[in-house]
Amino acid sequence: MSKPTLALIGATGAVGTVMRELVSTREDVWGEIRLVASARSAGKVLRVRGEDVVVQALAPEVFDGVDVAIFDVPDEVSAEWVPVAAARGAIAIDKSGTFRMEPDVPLVVPEVNPLEARNRPRNIISTPNCTTLSMMAAIGALHAEYTLKELVVASYQAVSGAGVAGPARLYDEIEALAGDRTVGQSAGDVRKALANKLEGDSPFPAPIAFNVVPWAGSYKDGGWASEELKLRNESRKILGIPDLKVSATCVRVPVVTTHSLAVHARFEREITVADAHRILEAAPSVVLMDDPANGVWPTPIDVVGTDPTYIGRIRQAVDFPNTLDMFVCGDNLRKGAALNAAEIAELVATEF
Amino acid sequence: MSKPTLALIGATGAVGTVMRELVSTREDVWGEIRLVASARSAGKVLRVRGEDVVVQALAPEVFDGVDVAIFDVPDEVSAEWVPVAAARGAIAIDKSGTFRMEPDVPLVVPEVNPLEARNRPRNIISTPNCTTLSMMAAIGALHAEYTLKELVVASYQAVSGAGVAGPARLYDEIEALAGDRTVGQSAGDVRKALANKLEGDSPFPAPIAFNVVPWAGSYKDGGWASEELKLRNESRKILGIPDLKVSATCVRVPVVTTHSLAVHARFEREITVADAHRILEAAPSVVLMDDPANGVWPTPIDVVGTDPTYIGRIRQAVDFPNTLDMFVCGDNLRKGAALNAAEIAELVATEF
Repeated sequence: MSKPTLALIGATGAVGTVMRELVSTREDVWGEIRLVASARSAGKVLRVRGEDVVVQALAPEVFDGVDVAIFDVPDEVSAEWVPVAAARGAIAIDKSGTFRMEPDVPLVVPEVNPLEARNRPRNIISTPNCTTLSMMAAIGALHAEYTLKELVVASYQAVSGAGVAGPARLYDEIEALAGDRTVGQSAGDVRKALANKLEGDSPFPAPIAFNVVPWAGSYKDGGWASEELKLRNESRKILGIPDLKVSATCVRVPVVTTHSLAVHARFEREITVADAHRILEAAPSVVLMDDPANGVWPTPIDVVGTDPTYIGRIRQAVDFPNTLDMFVCGDNLRKGAALNAAEIAELVATEF
Repeated sequence: MSKPTLALIGATGAVGTVMRELVSTREDVWGEIRLVASARSAGKVLRVRGEDVVVQALAPEVFDGVDVAIFDVPDEVSAEWVPVAAARGAIAIDKSGTFRMEPDVPLVVPEVNPLEARNRPRNIISTPNCTTLSMMAAIGALHAEYTLKELVVASYQAVSGAGVAGPARLYDEIEALAGDRTVGQSAGDVRKALANKLEGDSPFPAPIAFNVVPWAGSYKDGGWASEELKLRNESRKILGIPDLKVSATCVRVPVVTTHSLAVHARFEREITVADAHRILEAAPSVVLMDDPANGVWPTPIDVVGTDPTYIGRIRQAVDFPNTLDMFVCGDNLRKGAALNAAEIAELVATEF
């Protein structure tokens, strides 16, 4: 059995960079690894598994002989090229939102629904949005034993969720405002200071330093942001609960990387904090940090750059039956993006 | 009818400073205004209504002839001195947590339950915690017409909620980290950088720059933080709904001043976004900012330093009947603290 050939499409982006690190440091199940990007980046030389690899321009031929292709590209690029890869025989693992809700494309989180990866009539597997993924390993483990009925979620989303321009903008704003020990104390002062000191557009619809911004994604009917509906629809599909009740409010915060979520989860039957601890301590890819009397709970800066989903602040809701309140953190560029795609790729690599 | 005499106890603190500004700029209903603080601050000269006033040390005699005394001091100072003021004939308006849940002390938000201010057998009126207050004018208006049944809240709390040390620490951390364009990208790097560059303790249990911290207040049974239980218990008392279901997760964010809340609110009957808009546009002390298709919603830096409660992102929950999801911002030092106390004081001033 020869090792399968992997292609990374979008190898030069924020997630692509983490992806190259992951395939270089995880167990090496791959034969050839091809790096693919836009024509603009073609010819660049990047390191993978300690070797130099020349980036190829995206074209139909780059998929010849490829067994597994991981796409981390904008929605419209995925819409065009994922079917090309699949038609040429590659199993296409797509990070974009394009195919996630298609009924004949599985949406896979290996800790939750690994068998779905085999059910791929179009040879396409989607990987979820980073916000959904940030909680799914933990929520999936609780659901497996207690059956989830409702989720009310508020997010604290990192700026790198908006791509490499996100951290650049946050660092720019922090540098522009640092040293002013009155900023953030009168309406609009942050906007005025930034207008005087910073050129260029922000990827965010409002200043993000010293602020929180209650908007992520594009506008949808009913006043919803696309990120909020993704969290609802993707959670339903991954967990296999078509009638799961979900409400989410997505808010961007001045954190570089790692999304956090306040989760209010109702289950079919009574669940105690001790029950949740027992399940989450045993759950794969989950780290329980829950000893608030001793100041133990996860925060973004303490877990960024690592693989697991971290969970703490688990409380039995005082007034709601069968309900837990929790706080979850996950690196949006790792489990939230590159890692989940790599894990799906490793799952299907066992078929070769 | 002579104008009543007002005493401000804790006149030199963060809230006290805002309080002096408020009584200097709002309609002047007061006769004499006395400034009172700890012995350490006695003798200081501070400006009120454009005049210099000498700060007096807290002692029983400072309450002689006082009609209304506003206390913004630590819980234990309130516990000792609020009854002294009341015994000497002053109506004591207390910002601390000491008396809020006492059955014979009203907990007043003038927009919501103004009549309660007259029902004060102990001559004491409490004003709520800043997190509760940040949403109460808006939630109270909706409750008055649609009857609130459940609240699930996640907070984005500003550092000034921890007193003057909060903003000082955030500014210190931002200055120490600004210019490092890699910070916040690997686990613990923020802690290491701060340990090298900053002396002194933080009022927060974890770094707050480039971070969010899921803890506010002291430890309570069941893993709850005191701030979360205050939000529950105070909301029930202010709204007069003893069986209101409430779950809250309180999270500190790197915002200087103005608390934000993601609120999931279930009512007794169906309520549309249009219904909510109609009510909130007419509600006193509430500003509706809700046109997300055009990027209109409140953020802390846009409303800090102003009096109203701002509300936006109002959505009818897709899966939950009779339920709205919303985002609320309010200045925790103004309506969240000094302003509500000033409004209560003005309410009782009409009795003189």
